[in-house]
Amino acid sequence: MENKEEDVKVGANKFSERQPLGTAAQTDKDYKEPPPAPLFEPGELKSWSFYRAGIAEFVATFLFLYITILTVMGVNRSPSKCSSVGIQGIAWAFGGMIFALVYCTAGISDLMKFGLGWVGTGGHINPAVTFGLFLARKLSLTRAVFYMVMQCLGAICGAGVVKGFEGGARYEMYKGGANILSSGYTKGSGLGAEIVGTFVLVYTVFSATDAKRNARDSHVPILAPLPIGFAVFLVHLATIPITGTGINPARSLGAAVIFNKDVAWDDQWIFWVGPFIGAALAAVYHQIVIRAIPFKTRA
Amino acid sequence: MENKEEDVKVGANKFSERQPLGTAAQTDKDYKEPPPAPLFEPGELKSWSFYRAGIAEFVATFLFLYITILTVMGVNRSPSKCSSVGIQGIAWAFGGMIFALVYCTAGISDLMKFGLGWVGTGGHINPAVTFGLFLARKLSLTRAVFYMVMQCLGAICGAGVVKGFEGGARYEMYKGGANILSSGYTKGSGLGAEIVGTFVLVYTVFSATDAKRNARDSHVPILAPLPIGFAVFLVHLATIPITGTGINPARSLGAAVIFNKDVAWDDQWIFWVGPFIGAALAAVYHQIVIRAIPFKTRA
Amino acid sequence: MENKEEDVKVGANKFSERQPLGTAAQTDKDYKEPPPAPLFEPGELKSWSFYRAGIAEFVATFLFLYITILTVMGVNRSPSKCSSVGIQGIAWAFGGMIFALVYCTAGISDLMKFGLGWVGTGGHINPAVTFGLFLARKLSLTRAVFYMVMQCLGAICGAGVVKGFEGGARYEMYKGGANILSSGYTKGSGLGAEIVGTFVLVYTVFSATDAKRNARDSHVPILAPLPIGFAVFLVHLATIPITGTGINPARSLGAAVIFNKDVAWDDQWIFWVGPFIGAALAAVYHQIVIRAIPFKTRA
Amino acid sequence: MENKEEDVKVGANKFSERQPLGTAAQTDKDYKEPPPAPLFEPGELKSWSFYRAGIAEFVATFLFLYITILTVMGVNRSPSKCSSVGIQGIAWAFGGMIFALVYCTAGISDLMKFGLGWVGTGGHINPAVTFGLFLARKLSLTRAVFYMVMQCLGAICGAGVVKGFEGGARYEMYKGGANILSSGYTKGSGLGAEIVGTFVLVYTVFSATDAKRNARDSHVPILAPLPIGFAVFLVHLATIPITGTGINPARSLGAAVIFNKDVAWDDQWIFWVGPFIGAALAAVYHQIVIRAIPFKTRA
Repeated sequence: MENKEEDVKVGANKFSERQPLGTAAQTDKDYKEPPPAPLFEPGELKSWSFYRAGIAEFVATFLFLYITILTVMGVNRSPSKCSSVGIQGIAWAFGGMIFALVYCTAGISDLMKFGLGWVGTGGHINPAVTFGLFLARKLSLTRAVFYMVMQCLGAICGAGVVKGFEGGARYEMYKGGANILSSGYTKGSGLGAEIVGTFVLVYTVFSATDAKRNARDSHVPILAPLPIGFAVFLVHLATIPITGTGINPARSLGAAVIFNKDVAWDDQWIFWVGPFIGAALAAVYHQIVIRAIPFKTRA
Repeated sequence: MENKEEDVKVGANKFSERQPLGTAAQTDKDYKEPPPAPLFEPGELKSWSFYRAGIAEFVATFLFLYITILTVMGVNRSPSKCSSVGIQGIAWAFGGMIFALVYCTAGISDLMKFGLGWVGTGGHINPAVTFGLFLARKLSLTRAVFYMVMQCLGAICGAGVVKGFEGGARYEMYKGGANILSSGYTKGSGLGAEIVGTFVLVYTVFSATDAKRNARDSHVPILAPLPIGFAVFLVHLATIPITGTGINPARSLGAAVIFNKDVAWDDQWIFWVGPFIGAALAAVYHQIVIRAIPFKTRA
Repeated sequence: MENKEEDVKVGANKFSERQPLGTAAQTDKDYKEPPPAPLFEPGELKSWSFYRAGIAEFVATFLFLYITILTVMGVNRSPSKCSSVGIQGIAWAFGGMIFALVYCTAGISDLMKFGLGWVGTGGHINPAVTFGLFLARKLSLTRAVFYMVMQCLGAICGAGVVKGFEGGARYEMYKGGANILSSGYTKGSGLGAEIVGTFVLVYTVFSATDAKRNARDSHVPILAPLPIGFAVFLVHLATIPITGTGINPARSLGAAVIFNKDVAWDDQWIFWVGPFIGAALAAVYHQIVIRAIPFKTRA
Repeated sequence: MENKEEDVKVGANKFSERQPLGTAAQTDKDYKEPPPAPLFEPGELKSWSFYRAGIAEFVATFLFLYITILTVMGVNRSPSKCSSVGIQGIAWAFGGMIFALVYCTAGISDLMKFGLGWVGTGGHINPAVTFGLFLARKLSLTRAVFYMVMQCLGAICGAGVVKGFEGGARYEMYKGGANILSSGYTKGSGLGAEIVGTFVLVYTVFSATDAKRNARDSHVPILAPLPIGFAVFLVHLATIPITGTGINPARSLGAAVIFNKDVAWDDQWIFWVGPFIGAALAAVYHQIVIRAIPFKTRA
């Protein structure tokens, strides 16, 4: 392990001298897959950057829930949707916040040394994204679990502040932005909608943070936070009428904890099982089909 | 052929050493048009990248139809458009998905070696785009046909999943997002709207993937997926009231196959003839007027 | 004249060897203002690129009017604005088309050799923009007049096609997207709104195409078409209720010619005088205040 | 001082020779924190660039208030929000103008020599942003106070022009876009909403202008104005129903001065205290937690 890391560092140094990133000068032959992250990296727990990344996940998910749930409350309060920002405005709030927060938060942790680019280095703001990147071995199990816990805590606090601002009665009347399966849809449809929706998001994350694409096309990473934010926006356009759109277990959990009625807890499993299946499918699609990493021993 | 390819590769290597892409250091004189793609390239059929590009087209068109038709259903279901994402939300769904999918999918196939940039290398998600790029000899006939078949299959599956989630009765009541000529418009107007609309899209694709512009201005490819997505969004803003907006035969076919009523089949030809004429006009305009390629023997 | 051009070319060559554009390596001291464009450049009239740029202006303005006026018609036809893309959708149509068309069309003419970047090289799609850039001596008088004529012709044809698709009766009932001063506003307010609105647009164009900023900050030109498009979008959000928003004499003329009622002609002068004053103020502000070009003899 | 400046300049020169900006070739070790701006820099007051930056702040804030308050008036005048650009359109006006103006105005002052990138060099358009950057010692106290005064003057003039166009009676009836706490919310909630909202904005500004991130990731500064604009848009989506959204004391003051009714003055303190607390928290979070600057003596 020690040795491998040494190699990576040396390679990274050589690389930056010969071929500045952002010039697309690297050819396919030169490209080497970064080694998979270890399951447990004891050194992480001693580094400030590990805890800083966790704090950044907490703050980002806090702000995400705060802005989005407050937007939902404003729309629900409005006697006519026309005199609010509307359902489309809710979709913009979710997608736009992910855009801004991925832009702000990505790159804060030390994973940068593995060359993962923007999103692989923090700025997940979503346990499903963390889970998908973990399956692709982009971060250690320790780090993945730590991120997920911080995301869930941030989400609970964010929704809690909204309840504080709105007052308990109003918060409950308008259901606090909790994800609930709409009448007229089966549990299967709801689960399916969460699976495909999360697939769209996590597939976009993989495409945007694909180190090989980044090395070859210098334009891939520049826009990265924008398509990731748009993916969230688009899934909301499509599935708000079905489930209110989860595709982020921390968001669903945070809203449910603060709302805390049976109706929010009954379907909670859909918003964990669906996103995790969708993220896993996206990881498989990207690593096996698109990158064909398992078949590359001869390359 | 062999020889020409050799030349391209050698040129590409020399190029990347002397003038890193992204620095706009290449002058007009240095620029050489890449050779036209052959009609049939037998080698393609043996390469994994050929099939992978087809799978990527299938998956992208599947996701495109899934998200967009589900958004259409949500708007149509809503008793007042005000309590849905609205017609504008539908336009965002179509344009936004093209933005995200072009970003994610472009550059997956091997055509990269011809220096075509983003979109020429997959990520068409639209038979009209494939047809336009084929006319400009950016990809082989084999590949063009393969892409179109995969796009149509993906579109049918995407619409099918929406029907599965919504249930047959509701799907039929809200017409399943099928392209139908609105009352009050002649077939000529509908055909014209499809022609000009597809022209806008394919002209944007050509501008964004123009290898000569990319070589001269390093900023052209960076934004590329954004104006392409916007082109789709804008055409929807303008022509949803006329035809529901096709400008993508796979999208029109997929929705029609799953909806499968006479009303959707009667006008289906408009959504194939229109886009193909529009794409051909855009190819002619870009190659003859803007690039003046036929007159460049002396250059 | 001949001599000056020689100098520019030689300088350009040296520049690209020492300091690749896009690296921000150029310091303020190195930067030299490009020479002002001559009033008349006889050589232009013999170059294909001159006519090609004119054709590109025609096609772009044609598509601009086609998409935007069709969007306006769709909104006006709709019994409730709620079941259309809405007034906000109209603003997106105008701003979005400018974004896409500036992206596609900029850089087509030969002015590139003066190092003007994106917009200075075509892609104006607006006589007020052409006028502002002419005042700053970014293009010759010959070229400016030629562009304006082509823009007006394109706009007339674009609006004409919309009338053809919609039919005369409907076109007239919904006023064909003509710019008309709303009741409740004085002519002074209308003129003022056009002046400030065009100032916002042309100031953005100057900021985005400032050769000195582009040389110093490689990130300025990459986004350029986006803030220009947004400027158009934003002015529409603000002034559609006042004048329907002109800030583009070709757009106002095209719609008026095809609509051709007194109500459209009575206020037509506002949509020429206002934009030209606004563009002149933006040119003065950018060249005198921001760039301080007249005081730079000692630099 | 003289000496330090010399050092910076020399370093800058060396840097641009070895490692062109925009290539991300700089490693963490190479990176040196720019020195904090002095509280008072007497030289500033003699430089044209100081006054030019102030003029630019005035003009930008003038245009900001003009476009946004006019949009608010248009929406309020409309009998049904549906036949206006809607509340969402208001949010776009605020966010979009910040995007366009940051793009246009950033980089105009001389602070560029401290390597602060886009926003640190003017283009604040907001006293809270100026205050946050001052706390992080990105600009001198003299400059910070001068910017804030110019921003407030620009805002007053911008709102004044809107009143001139709309006429006094209508302006007062629709409350002139003044920030007023909505009924149903406590002063604490309003203050809290302003604090968190400004935190979102100023945190985004810090992330986008972080010189260390910019040096390491060439893609960070390219998008910068976009997430900053989106942050403003998103906070408006969430808090228009609570306070009309200030997060910019100049905007709140300008609207209040021109509207000039007790109802606007009563809560004015919220729109100064809230944004300044939020900006201070963002500065602390970014400098202490994310960048850990106080603990870096050993680095």
